[in-house]
Amino acid sequence: MDMVPYTIAALDRLRRQAPLIHNITNFVVMETTANILLAVGASPVMAHCRAEVEEMVSLAGALVLNIGTLQEDWVEAMCLAGKKANALRIPVILDPVGAGATQLRNRAVRTIMARCRITVLRGNASEVLSLVSADVRTKGVDSSLDLSDAGVAAAKALARDARCIVAISGAADCITDGHRVCRVDNGQPLMTRVTGVGCGLSAVTGAFCAVADGNTGCFDATVAAFGFYALCGDRAIRTSDKPGTFFTAFLDRLYDTGPDEIRALLKVRET
Amino acid sequence: MDMVPYTIAALDRLRRQAPLIHNITNFVVMETTANILLAVGASPVMAHCRAEVEEMVSLAGALVLNIGTLQEDWVEAMCLAGKKANALRIPVILDPVGAGATQLRNRAVRTIMARCRITVLRGNASEVLSLVSADVRTKGVDSSLDLSDAGVAAAKALARDARCIVAISGAADCITDGHRVCRVDNGQPLMTRVTGVGCGLSAVTGAFCAVADGNTGCFDATVAAFGFYALCGDRAIRTSDKPGTFFTAFLDRLYDTGPDEIRALLKVRET
Amino acid sequence: MDMVPYTIAALDRLRRQAPLIHNITNFVVMETTANILLAVGASPVMAHCRAEVEEMVSLAGALVLNIGTLQEDWVEAMCLAGKKANALRIPVILDPVGAGATQLRNRAVRTIMARCRITVLRGNASEVLSLVSADVRTKGVDSSLDLSDAGVAAAKALARDARCIVAISGAADCITDGHRVCRVDNGQPLMTRVTGVGCGLSAVTGAFCAVADGNTGCFDATVAAFGFYALCGDRAIRTSDKPGTFFTAFLDRLYDTGPDEIRALLKVRET
Repeated sequence: MDMVPYTIAALDRLRRQAPLIHNITNFVVMETTANILLAVGASPVMAHCRAEVEEMVSLAGALVLNIGTLQEDWVEAMCLAGKKANALRIPVILDPVGAGATQLRNRAVRTIMARCRITVLRGNASEVLSLVSADVRTKGVDSSLDLSDAGVAAAKALARDARCIVAISGAADCITDGHRVCRVDNGQPLMTRVTGVGCGLSAVTGAFCAVADGNTGCFDATVAAFGFYALCGDRAIRTSDKPGTFFTAFLDRLYDTGPDEIRALLKVRET
Repeated sequence: MDMVPYTIAALDRLRRQAPLIHNITNFVVMETTANILLAVGASPVMAHCRAEVEEMVSLAGALVLNIGTLQEDWVEAMCLAGKKANALRIPVILDPVGAGATQLRNRAVRTIMARCRITVLRGNASEVLSLVSADVRTKGVDSSLDLSDAGVAAAKALARDARCIVAISGAADCITDGHRVCRVDNGQPLMTRVTGVGCGLSAVTGAFCAVADGNTGCFDATVAAFGFYALCGDRAIRTSDKPGTFFTAFLDRLYDTGPDEIRALLKVRET
Repeated sequence: MDMVPYTIAALDRLRRQAPLIHNITNFVVMETTANILLAVGASPVMAHCRAEVEEMVSLAGALVLNIGTLQEDWVEAMCLAGKKANALRIPVILDPVGAGATQLRNRAVRTIMARCRITVLRGNASEVLSLVSADVRTKGVDSSLDLSDAGVAAAKALARDARCIVAISGAADCITDGHRVCRVDNGQPLMTRVTGVGCGLSAVTGAFCAVADGNTGCFDATVAAFGFYALCGDRAIRTSDKPGTFFTAFLDRLYDTGPDEIRALLKVRET
């Protein structure tokens, strides 16, 4: 598939429909995630209380689960919301923040994946690969490794086993459903020097999936989200290569990037 | 009343007194709310633990309650703080974030309003009108409707029934105590594309009420807060019409807007 | 000691080693703290759940405890993490946000200091001096007083009694281990008009201590952290004297300040 017209059309649907994206996410990035979703054109809501998550997700176009700053009672809320989303065929994105750093986070990922069908698993290389190898240790929430060819093979195997899309952020992002593999060559290292930019990509992936044609369309939607997002980073770096002004410009670019910029700058390849 | 001299004098009192504003608010907007209050000239504090809210509110000039990212145990803390504020005649602002989206939030608003006297109820149209009509459904935390003439009438009735000021943000903000109705024609649609700008207005309303002459002065104080805040948005849009740089400029304008700008730009009318 | 070469060398170590800084901190400043640490060159993680704090701190170069937006169960997690850090000889920074405002916060500081060895106690003048005098009352989280000569003497006595470094932010920061006293004359009043800038200094102090030579090197590391941080404020004010754009510029300066700027601008004196 030619990702340029797909991404243009997906972004247009997103901005016209302004889907509600229900986030159960960590305290550090709640504001940034909301601002990123608003800039792209989606409508964010954060709600984590067990008493309301099923009702809230029923109004939503996608559910985004994120295990940063985890508390044990939040895992139960995530599972309740995830099962409801599954029943309503609403895409579920899981961001395994800090998996590979502590047992609590590893257990949380296993519990959520055992109890809900995940549409897209989005993380950095060490977070994702720690799920398949006990040797991978994450440095807090920052990746401890780059994605090698062996890492891509492991991601493909994980996608097949878990029956989900595995999407790994890095120097060249990698998205696989276990069969197809797409790489995104857009993006800037400075994006890792602003908190919430990775988590924001999980949320934007949810927004693109919310306007895709069913779960089968979510692979292309994920590739489009990654390409669009990284391309906005490429545009923002032209304004500033320092993190404060870079992030402000990045929000502006999420808001004003359109067909022309996507045609000129998108660098996605299927391998 | 001519709102121009009132607003100038109220802002001057606020900046000289720097009242402490006690917020029990949601995780998404805590930082933004604090920065908005600091920019205006107030002194924010966030405290939600039942063991300290009564002591903290006793030091404060206003209490701001906000039910976004609600947990059930926070409602109890809000009621404790609200009752203490009532006893000390400290104004209480309630922001019913997401009312009309879930039963949890609807119940929380009813509980808080049954147990505390609210000075100002500040929300968007669907949040506020969902309190009087079961037909109004909020899209997460974003309004699903504009304020019609029937909506204004419903807001007036709610203000009389609940004996509070009802203040609704929108294309033309509407503030009523059940008898008088003021509209504010300042403001920019882009303000809805940055998270926390609505919640920040609730907090700024608290800051203006903190320096008003008793609860009877809180109607004018609320109108002044709405006018000043929206006017800062009008000034910020001259710097940028993109959300990242717009919000940065908005904080700058909350800090540097003074008598001259209020005289030149304030658009408040009593209807 | 000449602080210029020390600060240059410490910053270089920090950026090369990118130490993991484990924060158990308040909801208001989590994002800002993470962005400040990332801009300086450290790797932040926020984790507060009792089930993971000991494992997380074991990966870290420093632990930063901050009692803003306190809940009672977090104190227990802070003590667990602090004791583990003590056992592993990892520096522990305590920021007593709002001490002197409520009994809950005063008790929390006493409990943490009784159960863990604190390396650096970092706060504003009324927060720190409230620990030694019941007469000092903090206005929410903002200081109610400037540091007098009597205040410096009280800080020295506290440092000796508690066997920790006491570091007080203000017009002229004051750092003492009970014997030596250093003052930092860099810094801008506008830094108090952006939330999280004080808490961010506690985190940056943790980052400098993480790359110091054992606890004995933490006094110089704390002075270096204070000098570097305030100097970045002096550079940022040249870009803007309004809080929104100032803070964005401050993050940029934390990222790009190097040896030349430290040589030209650092104003630290031992008294």
